[in-house]
Amino acid sequence: MKEERPESLRASIISVGTEILMGEITNTNTVWLSQRLNELGCDVLYHHTVGDNPGRLTHALEVSLKDSDLVITTGGLGPTQDDMTKEVVCQALEDHLEMNEDWLRILYERYEKRGRKMTDNNRKQALLPSRSRMLFNEVGSAPGFVLSDPSGSKTVCCLPGPPREMTWLYREKLEPILQELIAQRCGGASVLHARILRTFGIGESSLETALLDLIDGQTDPTIATYAKTGECTLRIASKRADRRDAEDAVEEMIAKVRERIGEYIYSENDEELVQVVGRKLMEKGLTISAAESCTGGMFAAKLTEVPGISAVFDRSLVTYSNQAKMEELGVREETLKEFGAVSEETAREMAEGARRVSGSDIGISVTGIAGPDGGTEDKPVGTICYALATEEGTVCRKTVWDTGFRQFNRIYAVLNMLDMIRRAAAN
Amino acid sequence: MKEERPESLRASIISVGTEILMGEITNTNTVWLSQRLNELGCDVLYHHTVGDNPGRLTHALEVSLKDSDLVITTGGLGPTQDDMTKEVVCQALEDHLEMNEDWLRILYERYEKRGRKMTDNNRKQALLPSRSRMLFNEVGSAPGFVLSDPSGSKTVCCLPGPPREMTWLYREKLEPILQELIAQRCGGASVLHARILRTFGIGESSLETALLDLIDGQTDPTIATYAKTGECTLRIASKRADRRDAEDAVEEMIAKVRERIGEYIYSENDEELVQVVGRKLMEKGLTISAAESCTGGMFAAKLTEVPGISAVFDRSLVTYSNQAKMEELGVREETLKEFGAVSEETAREMAEGARRVSGSDIGISVTGIAGPDGGTEDKPVGTICYALATEEGTVCRKTVWDTGFRQFNRIYAVLNMLDMIRRAAAN
Repeated sequence: MKEERPESLRASIISVGTEILMGEITNTNTVWLSQRLNELGCDVLYHHTVGDNPGRLTHALEVSLKDSDLVITTGGLGPTQDDMTKEVVCQALEDHLEMNEDWLRILYERYEKRGRKMTDNNRKQALLPSRSRMLFNEVGSAPGFVLSDPSGSKTVCCLPGPPREMTWLYREKLEPILQELIAQRCGGASVLHARILRTFGIGESSLETALLDLIDGQTDPTIATYAKTGECTLRIASKRADRRDAEDAVEEMIAKVRERIGEYIYSENDEELVQVVGRKLMEKGLTISAAESCTGGMFAAKLTEVPGISAVFDRSLVTYSNQAKMEELGVREETLKEFGAVSEETAREMAEGARRVSGSDIGISVTGIAGPDGGTEDKPVGTICYALATEEGTVCRKTVWDTGFRQFNRIYAVLNMLDMIRRAAAN
Repeated sequence: MKEERPESLRASIISVGTEILMGEITNTNTVWLSQRLNELGCDVLYHHTVGDNPGRLTHALEVSLKDSDLVITTGGLGPTQDDMTKEVVCQALEDHLEMNEDWLRILYERYEKRGRKMTDNNRKQALLPSRSRMLFNEVGSAPGFVLSDPSGSKTVCCLPGPPREMTWLYREKLEPILQELIAQRCGGASVLHARILRTFGIGESSLETALLDLIDGQTDPTIATYAKTGECTLRIASKRADRRDAEDAVEEMIAKVRERIGEYIYSENDEELVQVVGRKLMEKGLTISAAESCTGGMFAAKLTEVPGISAVFDRSLVTYSNQAKMEELGVREETLKEFGAVSEETAREMAEGARRVSGSDIGISVTGIAGPDGGTEDKPVGTICYALATEEGTVCRKTVWDTGFRQFNRIYAVLNMLDMIRRAAAN
């Protein structure tokens, strides 16, 4: 019965899109927005999804506005005929649409820049409610907006449906407005402070066992665990009248957790493993090259998600065939014959080869059986070998875990490579 | 407006659970149930989620029952105090709860068998609406049930929240009841047939403009468009009494669409571009190697998602630095100096280099500015150059589109590479 907190803003989320009702896409927008609104201390009362149907969107708005101070909608802001969120919200909040000439100009300019002609239906995206505050969309063609009812007690915020645009607009434009709104309406409301710790290499049940008394014994801060592929995340949260109190309580709990499972924690700020590893490499100026087989470039693709990594990342040789392993990395034919392509011996020669041809400080390699086929009794699907070569020598690792999915087996392999680098770069 | 089909059953789904409103779990139940209901030919009108709050569950039920013939709820059937779905549904449909002695005995027996003592609150799970039809739960302790209103025109089906129990009960117990209900209410129940066409290289608004009369002029089959990064998907659906009629109508519409925008369609069966390209390469026995800069291995990682691709994919040289481009691919220093690393000239030498060192039929390359930094006036962020080399020569492509996100710019680049291969392999 967590949800009754009269001192906080009450919110509802409405998703507009027939494709959600058809079960064709999972409604990730709503999960994400719920997390954000809860972080801000809002009580989320309802999620609704409706199709491209004005009558039912109106019903959902009415039910939501009855109890909620704040309603966020996603979807239905596009250029096509079935996009009708703006019209319905306008009517519900007693406003009308006007052409926003600034946005229209921006749309024309963007089309011109890309050498395309703007079609007529795109003009519709520049229509906005006359009293609304526009949320300037730098990553898409439909702006969002915030509109209050004439009394100013109910606020509706409309965001586009594509998750990339929605999350960007929320973070960059809407969140500050909501924070202001909450401060105005709720004054000294209670504050939720949460931190996310991320671990690799320890299972969820082992983690829970290690922390059982801390999880059971506490009502505030709370500890929740979430499992992902090979990773486990801990959310430590406190809700107090005073932000400082909440922060202190969370810090104290983190210190206890760190004492017990510190070795596995790679981030205390909800960062991805690759971000932590990338930063460490750049800080230390350690150059790195990779030799990949079963991951087929996923390691390099992951590492190059980190902006600025080109300062230390030189190349990855994706050697899918044995021929390529020999030609690009100098893996010996005898090694491949005697131990097979999936072996610690081959992984070792691949890592050392990557380091040699590139002249990098670190060479990292991976070779394995991602599945669904290709497993044997000795080397079942999910058998993956790794090596990390430095001037001090080469270390190997072998994991055997079939998640049941080729792609997850490959993701798990990349995480192991990153974990090896994290541990090597920690010294 | 695609969703009005009065000859089918109208359905809504209500999820009960504060943890969903907190954003702690993704509501997979609703996606799954939506797919099932659409398969049965139902029109899904609403998804609602409410917390453990009787008043708001009542509101959601009222809104749903207004338009829907059928409402399915998940969650809130458990033994604890905050589980209140049964009570609320009973009240809404003018019924009362009675102890089901059969289920109570089963619960006692199950506890005994496991050597545990049944706690008092578990008795609550044996309470069922007096007029309801129980859905016997063999995989959990809360039974589901089906209850109609006194007039028999509205039906509410309550299922437990845990996905494993929910899906089991639906498949084993509820689905046959729904099929019966649909046959009764809708007579010769209608059948929905849908196909998904996928396109690359044409924007959603251009697509709609090209097909406007087809979209506007038709109530069946319907055409809906969905946009993703660089891609656009068309869903063509028909709902008829006879499956064959529905299939024919969809095929006929696809032929019309193909005539207008056939060049951009890469799949008529909702396949990913990489699957189409991978199959084509394997069918023709065309070997391929890649040279990647800004995508950092994403192309190879994507292509190696295709099982069996090792038969034609040899290697990818992820040459992030200029040094690596020269050493691994033989790109000339003068080319890099004169035109820069991001240029069609460099892309050309990379693709030709990849083809030369690997001896593959096709060499494909990419070099660009993925952002967020690194753009110039001449070459803004989002400038990406590609080349594809075969024995017949080399073709280049250049795109300039900043999605606002490094990762999406890179995904767009990979799609362009795949599109170039698709077009080259089509001949």
